[in-house]
Amino acid sequence: MLHRKVIMAIADGVGDRPHPLLDNKTPLEYARTPNLDRLASKGMTGMMNLISPGIPVGTDMGHLILFGYQPDQYPGRGPIEALGIGMDVQPGDIVLRCNFATVDENGIVLDRRAQRIREKTDEIAGAIHGMELEDGVEVHFKPATEHRAVLILRGNGLSDKVSDSDPKAPNDGKPYHQIEPLDGSAEAGHTASLLNRFLQKAHILLSSHPVNEQRIANGKLPANFILTRGAGQMAHLKPIVEDLNITGSCIAGESTVLGVAQLAGFKTLTDPAMTGNLDTDIALKARLAIQEIYEKDMVYVHLKAPDLMGHDNKPVEKAKAIELFDEMVGLIEQQLPDNVYLALAADHSTPCEVGEHTGDPVPVLIYGPSIRRDRILQYNELDCAHGGLGHLTGNEFVRTLHGLMGYVKKQGN
Amino acid sequence: MLHRKVIMAIADGVGDRPHPLLDNKTPLEYARTPNLDRLASKGMTGMMNLISPGIPVGTDMGHLILFGYQPDQYPGRGPIEALGIGMDVQPGDIVLRCNFATVDENGIVLDRRAQRIREKTDEIAGAIHGMELEDGVEVHFKPATEHRAVLILRGNGLSDKVSDSDPKAPNDGKPYHQIEPLDGSAEAGHTASLLNRFLQKAHILLSSHPVNEQRIANGKLPANFILTRGAGQMAHLKPIVEDLNITGSCIAGESTVLGVAQLAGFKTLTDPAMTGNLDTDIALKARLAIQEIYEKDMVYVHLKAPDLMGHDNKPVEKAKAIELFDEMVGLIEQQLPDNVYLALAADHSTPCEVGEHTGDPVPVLIYGPSIRRDRILQYNELDCAHGGLGHLTGNEFVRTLHGLMGYVKKQGN
Repeated sequence: MLHRKVIMAIADGVGDRPHPLLDNKTPLEYARTPNLDRLASKGMTGMMNLISPGIPVGTDMGHLILFGYQPDQYPGRGPIEALGIGMDVQPGDIVLRCNFATVDENGIVLDRRAQRIREKTDEIAGAIHGMELEDGVEVHFKPATEHRAVLILRGNGLSDKVSDSDPKAPNDGKPYHQIEPLDGSAEAGHTASLLNRFLQKAHILLSSHPVNEQRIANGKLPANFILTRGAGQMAHLKPIVEDLNITGSCIAGESTVLGVAQLAGFKTLTDPAMTGNLDTDIALKARLAIQEIYEKDMVYVHLKAPDLMGHDNKPVEKAKAIELFDEMVGLIEQQLPDNVYLALAADHSTPCEVGEHTGDPVPVLIYGPSIRRDRILQYNELDCAHGGLGHLTGNEFVRTLHGLMGYVKKQGN
Repeated sequence: MLHRKVIMAIADGVGDRPHPLLDNKTPLEYARTPNLDRLASKGMTGMMNLISPGIPVGTDMGHLILFGYQPDQYPGRGPIEALGIGMDVQPGDIVLRCNFATVDENGIVLDRRAQRIREKTDEIAGAIHGMELEDGVEVHFKPATEHRAVLILRGNGLSDKVSDSDPKAPNDGKPYHQIEPLDGSAEAGHTASLLNRFLQKAHILLSSHPVNEQRIANGKLPANFILTRGAGQMAHLKPIVEDLNITGSCIAGESTVLGVAQLAGFKTLTDPAMTGNLDTDIALKARLAIQEIYEKDMVYVHLKAPDLMGHDNKPVEKAKAIELFDEMVGLIEQQLPDNVYLALAADHSTPCEVGEHTGDPVPVLIYGPSIRRDRILQYNELDCAHGGLGHLTGNEFVRTLHGLMGYVKKQGN
């Protein structure tokens, strides 16, 4: 079998709708994108529904599919976030998303986010990480962005069927919730009681923590409590790279994308210069993509900015973010080795007028050796709707790439 | 989330094939349809297979899908027909379709339809409705169009696994069938014996009914028997409006469509002027559609005539029926509020040359705010086959609309 390689450039949330501020064009139509359009004229295009027409997906689900998983293999946001911040997550681990929070002496939640604490959360987390719970259950705890953190319980006889301690409602003078088992199993009861003890022990540790004493001295609320939510279990997902017997790298600034890449068995490359915004270093991303494709079979390179501008209803800035994407793709194409396909994709649409992910399909493109060029000359939602790839699900698009690479098993004989 | 509304105009059975009487054009191509074509040029189009390519569907199944159900949720024709004529159908009810018929003193069926009786069937039905059966099983009975009626048995310990008393064959000198249980359950045996007793009691009641005595005096056959067929059980289907948390209305003349609308939780509006034929009052339909969309999230407005002309192999008249549809759609578009999508669809194809429903896909169209306009300029089977929506299943098309409305739940986070 002839084996080839793929670089997939992902413009997060790039799909949109015609907008009055852009002469009733979509940001992709409006933006100046000579590189994307040249690839369209040389490649084949189509439209992709990540799951099925009309169904919106989150960034985690969208990337899970782009990396080759089925939608029903979604392991929950907790495990993906844990992987994304570099935690070692193992099958069977119970993973919870957490907030640093402030409670008073009666357990009343004064602030669900401890005034959106950003400083020294690593020091506070350090006091909790490694805490001992009974039966040899290990506590792994790591801060994420701002007031967020991830808690992992590792041990035998645990369950993710437990309720949240986070009351979620705005600070309304009510206490945090006791954690309850969500089914009748001994494991759920055991895990709930372990977690309630964890909350108590963490509260005692944090109440006297030097960072918090300093915060109080400075007139700030102490981060003296850990609110937990969304317990999930790390699924026994086989890394895609093992499934296909390939190797891969992912270049991204966003922890969710990096988390999915870890799950899939991809090497992850990130850098503070990958800001996720309009000032992200696209030259660095393009350089790393080319560097990695010499070593690996698949390279994913991700740009977050279009999605952010969609969420903020900024169509002109979204067009600018797309011009960044165009530039990055152009840099990659200039150095693309002969045996490598260049694919363009997105994880979902984030139309500016909606400000949320929607189920509108996204344009996709494949360019590379011996490609069946179609009649489409521009990369956008309207032209690619008539493209030669037709309308594909996310799984079908990714399998098309794996097929072109020569790694899909023949059915029958 | 941004919420919008949808008016869906359904041209029953509109899909067709090129016909020699129409210069080898399809009725949709041949008809003068300035409104449909203007919408095509401003909107996005595609082709829809209600279930899957090649599979014909009935009007009930087609509309069940257009209202948002999955094909495997089909509850049977009986419950839909019962709902369509305004009966209160409850989960667990056993519903049978019936004919008023004529039998002689030996039970020989003289006429399966009692000479297609149309007059005073409500009086005859009144004698049967409310009949008492043992074990507190209630009898609900209501006439439908012409010689048709619906019987509902309501009570405990009933089953729909029973055979038909209707021999269905043309009047061939044979007696009506005894009703038999179709499985070995006690419920089926009990229901079969209840139904056989119902047939006897109804026969006695009807034989001496004044309407029948008058018919005999006038030289007509008496409607002295109830033939039953197609026992079905009302499924525990959740109304679509509850599932999505929306409201809706349906404007139609046909009881099957109204029945599906009831099932889906839609308000139904009908009028004797909605004849189902070429003389139907399209101005009334358009006016009601606009009136209802101010109150509701979704409005379906249905036109039966194209299907009838297809069944009758009348291509020229089918083109006329399509021009009526065009006129109705034009009236709706003139008053369409800004936040409303206008969708065009059909429940199936009824090609004139076949005279039956076929599995040929039907053209669909979506026009409205910020739509991704495609390159198609005419609404018909041949142009829309190249449309920007691609080829969709019925479920995908409807979910696309629910997605544009902002009511589809995000998968992942």
